[in-house]
Amino acid sequence: MGQAHLHEILESLIDQHRSAYTEGEVASYIPELKKGNPALAGIAVWGPDGLVAAGDTQVPFTLQSISKIITLMVVLEQRGEAEVFSRVGPEPTGDPFNSILKLEISERRPLNPMINAGAIAVCSLLIGNTVEERFAHVTSLLAEILGREVFIDEQVYQSEKATGHRNRALAYFLKDTGVLEGDVEEVVDLYFRQCSILVTCEELARIGFFLATKGVALTGKRLLPPSIVRLVTTFMVTCGMYNASGEFAIKAGIPAKSGVAGGILAAVPGQFGIGTFGPALDSKGNSVVGFRILCDLSRRLDLSIF
Amino acid sequence: MGQAHLHEILESLIDQHRSAYTEGEVASYIPELKKGNPALAGIAVWGPDGLVAAGDTQVPFTLQSISKIITLMVVLEQRGEAEVFSRVGPEPTGDPFNSILKLEISERRPLNPMINAGAIAVCSLLIGNTVEERFAHVTSLLAEILGREVFIDEQVYQSEKATGHRNRALAYFLKDTGVLEGDVEEVVDLYFRQCSILVTCEELARIGFFLATKGVALTGKRLLPPSIVRLVTTFMVTCGMYNASGEFAIKAGIPAKSGVAGGILAAVPGQFGIGTFGPALDSKGNSVVGFRILCDLSRRLDLSIF
Amino acid sequence: MGQAHLHEILESLIDQHRSAYTEGEVASYIPELKKGNPALAGIAVWGPDGLVAAGDTQVPFTLQSISKIITLMVVLEQRGEAEVFSRVGPEPTGDPFNSILKLEISERRPLNPMINAGAIAVCSLLIGNTVEERFAHVTSLLAEILGREVFIDEQVYQSEKATGHRNRALAYFLKDTGVLEGDVEEVVDLYFRQCSILVTCEELARIGFFLATKGVALTGKRLLPPSIVRLVTTFMVTCGMYNASGEFAIKAGIPAKSGVAGGILAAVPGQFGIGTFGPALDSKGNSVVGFRILCDLSRRLDLSIF
Amino acid sequence: MGQAHLHEILESLIDQHRSAYTEGEVASYIPELKKGNPALAGIAVWGPDGLVAAGDTQVPFTLQSISKIITLMVVLEQRGEAEVFSRVGPEPTGDPFNSILKLEISERRPLNPMINAGAIAVCSLLIGNTVEERFAHVTSLLAEILGREVFIDEQVYQSEKATGHRNRALAYFLKDTGVLEGDVEEVVDLYFRQCSILVTCEELARIGFFLATKGVALTGKRLLPPSIVRLVTTFMVTCGMYNASGEFAIKAGIPAKSGVAGGILAAVPGQFGIGTFGPALDSKGNSVVGFRILCDLSRRLDLSIF
Repeated sequence: MGQAHLHEILESLIDQHRSAYTEGEVASYIPELKKGNPALAGIAVWGPDGLVAAGDTQVPFTLQSISKIITLMVVLEQRGEAEVFSRVGPEPTGDPFNSILKLEISERRPLNPMINAGAIAVCSLLIGNTVEERFAHVTSLLAEILGREVFIDEQVYQSEKATGHRNRALAYFLKDTGVLEGDVEEVVDLYFRQCSILVTCEELARIGFFLATKGVALTGKRLLPPSIVRLVTTFMVTCGMYNASGEFAIKAGIPAKSGVAGGILAAVPGQFGIGTFGPALDSKGNSVVGFRILCDLSRRLDLSIF
Repeated sequence: MGQAHLHEILESLIDQHRSAYTEGEVASYIPELKKGNPALAGIAVWGPDGLVAAGDTQVPFTLQSISKIITLMVVLEQRGEAEVFSRVGPEPTGDPFNSILKLEISERRPLNPMINAGAIAVCSLLIGNTVEERFAHVTSLLAEILGREVFIDEQVYQSEKATGHRNRALAYFLKDTGVLEGDVEEVVDLYFRQCSILVTCEELARIGFFLATKGVALTGKRLLPPSIVRLVTTFMVTCGMYNASGEFAIKAGIPAKSGVAGGILAAVPGQFGIGTFGPALDSKGNSVVGFRILCDLSRRLDLSIF
Repeated sequence: MGQAHLHEILESLIDQHRSAYTEGEVASYIPELKKGNPALAGIAVWGPDGLVAAGDTQVPFTLQSISKIITLMVVLEQRGEAEVFSRVGPEPTGDPFNSILKLEISERRPLNPMINAGAIAVCSLLIGNTVEERFAHVTSLLAEILGREVFIDEQVYQSEKATGHRNRALAYFLKDTGVLEGDVEEVVDLYFRQCSILVTCEELARIGFFLATKGVALTGKRLLPPSIVRLVTTFMVTCGMYNASGEFAIKAGIPAKSGVAGGILAAVPGQFGIGTFGPALDSKGNSVVGFRILCDLSRRLDLSIF
Repeated sequence: MGQAHLHEILESLIDQHRSAYTEGEVASYIPELKKGNPALAGIAVWGPDGLVAAGDTQVPFTLQSISKIITLMVVLEQRGEAEVFSRVGPEPTGDPFNSILKLEISERRPLNPMINAGAIAVCSLLIGNTVEERFAHVTSLLAEILGREVFIDEQVYQSEKATGHRNRALAYFLKDTGVLEGDVEEVVDLYFRQCSILVTCEELARIGFFLATKGVALTGKRLLPPSIVRLVTTFMVTCGMYNASGEFAIKAGIPAKSGVAGGILAAVPGQFGIGTFGPALDSKGNSVVGFRILCDLSRRLDLSIF
């Protein structure tokens, strides 16, 4: 398929689904996110022939939960699978992203690294003497993928830090059960920093293409072994879309990870990276517009891996 | 890869993993299943060039939870997606297969059709005036796939019927919340019947090949639309291996469904159907030997869909 | 206090609280109970000097959960404390009366004999060859207390039997975990029968007086040892008012047991038995009018045991 | 009963039950508490005729959860029932004292002020500009009851502060849901301070007598209105002994509150205050020796309020 034809499809997807934002709401639990413009909508696709984009694809927003996959890759590289999976499980949960329930009634480990509890456990595994040093491992991987320096949105970061009480509750619970080592405030600080990293929709597509090529940057440099990328891609399928992951697997069938700032990063193995953006969220925390666009695109281009 | 080479690989997998049965135990919660020989082990692969098998692949055993995917396909065909998903959700749960918890604290619908509660809800959707008529839809689809008449193991069926109290608990709970319509005893009777259907390991591979070809029998006849088969295949990835589905997705990456009699049915989309057999189960209800063989085979032949 | 003065107080309580029924609703989950007249209201007090009553105290209605204490007394007498507490615990739960949750995540035994799961376990301990024989132990104790033959409301009984799916779910769950022995349908049949026993508000007061005197009937005959009556009275305080037992302990401080047909039976140790009636229930299943009248009466007469 | 006779009974209770400490274990989750001598055992009774004591009744130890009732009385006085019960419920839970489960699946408010979550919510209601000022309200009430200045055990306080991660998890969860206002670290600091207050077994009896007399100090001065004391006494019955409160109500029937340092404070309304001490705890967190002594004493002297 030519780039022009693809562009046409993307434009039509934006036209068709943009207005669906009225069915969702901008995230309100992080005060700073409430300022997002719910009417924005964008989709970008990175493939072997480069980028095709439609809509609002150059507006910066924060990664939020999408950052979980970046840190997971760093930590798998630093610590190895065995150590990571001694702290966090591999199973989808069916629970909301901020649930604490299973930590009490099920096993000690958070069930997977995509729910907040699991992602916080992953953060605690970052190697480094200081928060800055540990966080630099995350930003430097992302910088290599994106080919630019990485920044955080200071307002969002401070807002999360000031109000992220549920995440602190999860972290202290994990501290109590021995899953989380080190200083709790430092660990949640890392978590809030990674959530606050700024990207654009086009850049999500670029990260997706990095995953689709199993770990090779656009420069041609291999940044990670394929096994790590495959593992992360698998998690994107089983639990990347919060407790709508099963529904998304059926309707789109593409590995994807969403964030509450409105981004969704998707990767069609061996083919494309895709980014979508739309700040209005459904009740489970996924971008209403992004979710629909990806389902529709998958149907039109037959992208499901199943 | 030639059939001879594949046969060699399968033989080596049986040799290597057969003894792992000592780490598991034959299912005991259905009295009749306790009689299974834990040392049996088999693997069969159906591909475009036919069947390759190694080990105990012609011993008959009961489908148990593997039957859930057959009935789900029948019901999706009979009722359509919309009606099915009004009764059962699409989300993996992280809970044990017989859990009742989420029915009380989460939404009314069972979270997915692969846990017992969901499969029972699916059974209640079978069309027909009598239990026999409804069950005939299940057996006739399977008969067409297998090219033979389908029977149940009467001892296992009676054993499940006499002792399946947890499944009755789930069914009555669903009756109370309005998810399940019709007579509860008839619905659980259907469920016990489907669990008691007899197959061999080679036949699991044949069913798997039917899924891999998106719904075409060996006769060349299309039995179901591809969309239904894809949907079922997706559920096999997100919740086919009980609450080890996430782990299996990472380690094998193949759509698969296991049953507590020791069978695992797997389907590599567009390529193979695979059946494994080994009655000794791990703590989550999956065949110890089958689980390992499939992970190893996937690694050797690079079968992961991720 | 003279009987005339007490009568005046009871009349004023009815006058003051009768209209509160508009804040509740007649139980709807048992179809037959929906026919109850929500505007009825009555209170009766039995003391050493006999009965004082105000309002609708001679209308027959079904015991519902109030029957749990009758059967518990019978079973404690038949089986002894040790055996009873091997099947049901002594702890309040904070959960709704029909909850199944704790049976999965907490211990095997239902937490107490006042929630449905626990009461069903208690029913399964009744001695006798047939359902009739076992039920006769319950009715004969009650007949001795009331000085009349005991009947059930056949319509309500049939209605519960036809629709008591949640109770069947609880019973089958208990059967699965080995708490409940014997035939599940027989046990729930016993449970539905005891729930359907007909009494009047005045008779509730008489049963309450039997408890207040620690087991002596109006005839002067001791029907049960004081230790059994004390035990049951204790349960009435910690879990007699469903998951409003704590609130009721604070506001009224009187051992009491409510039923969803609108009755509340209360016993002030060494002093009075009290019955109230008012079919409109609050969200937790207690009679709105009865709850308020008892709190008010306790305050006026300083009846709290605390 | 004369003081001499009572003394004889208390001595025999110590003799009979002291060795039961081998069936329990000193609390280990607060490192400093591990140093407790498990073999200590004491009981003290304060009545109208003064103190009778047997065993180790003058050894200082920390109040731990017993402090919950002191702070609850202060806060009820400062804020009034309505405001307190808008933050914490009145219902027993059946859950372990440090459970977080119900905060997610049940209502927003902790179910009662005796579980840790509820006690932390109560702490957040103390009035005052600084932690010191707020804590002074707690210590000054206790000082008036005890007739001496009140101190905390600095080692225990620092130990709890350094390791009280589960309590922080609870507090941050409550902060997230809006139940807890103010600074979380200050609130848990208050909680750790109150837990670290030093008392002796004899002094527990004195506090118990204060409750038994509905709020009058030994000096004859009324420190609190009877309604507040009655309310707190009620909570001691329904949830004072962690998730063994129901069992204790049946076996002893005395309002009581236990702490994990080994103390139990009991109050027989209108009669006695009782303190017991024995650092070895059962699996639910109650002093093994204290629990048995109180059950036995209640039986011998017929102290049950039921």
